[in-house]
Amino acid sequence: MSQKTRENPIYLKAYPLKEYQDIQRIKDDLEAGCIVIVRFTPLVKKSVEELAKSVDEIYKYSTTIGGDIARLGEDRIIITPPGVKIYRENSI
Amino acid sequence: MSQKTRENPIYLKAYPLKEYQDIQRIKDDLEAGCIVIVRFTPLVKKSVEELAKSVDEIYKYSTTIGGDIARLGEDRIIITPPGVKIYRENSI
Repeated sequence: MSQKTRENPIYLKAYPLKEYQDIQRIKDDLEAGCIVIVRFTPLVKKSVEELAKSVDEIYKYSTTIGGDIARLGEDRIIITPPGVKIYRENSI
Repeated sequence: MSQKTRENPIYLKAYPLKEYQDIQRIKDDLEAGCIVIVRFTPLVKKSVEELAKSVDEIYKYSTTIGGDIARLGEDRIIITPPGVKIYRENSI
């Protein structure tokens, strides 16, 4: 069994995206090497325009840093830092 | 900006838990160092008893390997290998 542990663990954080300003936290967490799962439903209810702008910026940012991004179900997006890849299959 | 990349990327996989036998795949993926997000709703519909048995075994396994485990929303569980920790906050 692989029991390797890293000196610094990678953190996985999950939180809601409530407004456009929240994407700064996502950027900061990704830059710190965290994996982020955001639930964007609060922003759907608030403003579809603000949601579109936020998601667009998150996509661009994840590409810029060499990370990965994918939809998870109806309500969430996963964004990863460089070094963490999302395995694509039909059921994601 | 932190642009560190590892020689071997960590994979994050998401798939449904349809029956008790599927937990072997979860164990194999964790042992290979993957992060796993399982959607357990298909098993809720099939058998609550089978679901309870599966979740119990996944919990025990994640503890045994020194990984981490947390509920994500209504329908999913995140399980991580050693070296990946789930950041706890109210909104997970």
